[in-house]
Amino acid sequence: MSEQGQQNISSRNLADFVSVNPCQIRKDFSYFGGFGTRGVGYKIEELIRQIKKILKLDVAHKAALIGVGNLGSAILAHPGFRAYGFDIAAAFDSDPKKIGRRVKDIMVEDVSNLGALKRRKIDLAIIAVPRDAAQQTADALVRANVKGILNFSPCYVTVPKKVKVISLDIAMDLARLPYYMPTS
Amino acid sequence: MSEQGQQNISSRNLADFVSVNPCQIRKDFSYFGGFGTRGVGYKIEELIRQIKKILKLDVAHKAALIGVGNLGSAILAHPGFRAYGFDIAAAFDSDPKKIGRRVKDIMVEDVSNLGALKRRKIDLAIIAVPRDAAQQTADALVRANVKGILNFSPCYVTVPKKVKVISLDIAMDLARLPYYMPTS
Repeated sequence: MSEQGQQNISSRNLADFVSVNPCQIRKDFSYFGGFGTRGVGYKIEELIRQIKKILKLDVAHKAALIGVGNLGSAILAHPGFRAYGFDIAAAFDSDPKKIGRRVKDIMVEDVSNLGALKRRKIDLAIIAVPRDAAQQTADALVRANVKGILNFSPCYVTVPKKVKVISLDIAMDLARLPYYMPTS
Repeated sequence: MSEQGQQNISSRNLADFVSVNPCQIRKDFSYFGGFGTRGVGYKIEELIRQIKKILKLDVAHKAALIGVGNLGSAILAHPGFRAYGFDIAAAFDSDPKKIGRRVKDIMVEDVSNLGALKRRKIDLAIIAVPRDAAQQTADALVRANVKGILNFSPCYVTVPKKVKVISLDIAMDLARLPYYMPTS
């Protein structure tokens, strides 16, 4: 709506978008101070700014990608990161054939140099390595002071409490579909 | 736990796993009849069977992959689908160089033949095409009687109400991390 030049949005319109009721929208925002005006709704630009602030997306973040296989290459090519203020600033792999090559304008580095992330103030990482290498990759990221990990490897990784891991299981996402499908 | 040969699990142990309280576990299961025994907990095999039934994962499902680029290839290589009873039974692309080639034992077919899914009783599909092709792919899948779509393209697709779409936005998943990270 912002891109379309709209100025305001009502809690009802917002509610329709996300399939909840308008009271819930108003109640949730009220926890953060409430940004709306009765009869007018929310100023869209201000709302975007406030939500980004709440989610700590109001500052730029640098992320490193570990594993430049098919999945890693798809992640590097993904156009959506910049919209959230993310810059994939480094990519690492263990394959000598890949190290030193450029993929989507990023030079692939040797995964044994993950320790350098600390100095470069990169505190987010995306794990896209084979399952067997996931835990050791997570361990190296923790040692490099990484604070947040998005894990695409199909296994759980264990990290200290101070590090946040979000694991994506694309098979489980597919598994959510049958519940909603009509039985034929 | 099943793989480790364990027989029973208490609601407390289950609750610890998913970070909710044990009452919630018991309450949720009670909606579906309640499968536990006081003092014993849940029989693990029976619980798995019941949950699979609730989620309609007790029958095998065939899925088609549309788009055999980097992401599509990574999806075909993903080891996790079989655990949920999924068989990626077909793959389609628009690139003549890919059509007719085998990727992970699956022959890549011409995307203009999506209509054949109906006859082959494949009613789940995974969209992994570039953004600009996502909506037309979804339209073709709907015409082919597909009932559930897992969409990896970074854009929303519009489908009739009878079709369920789950969209994955990996940039948004990364964007969930900063909220949990300590501010340095």
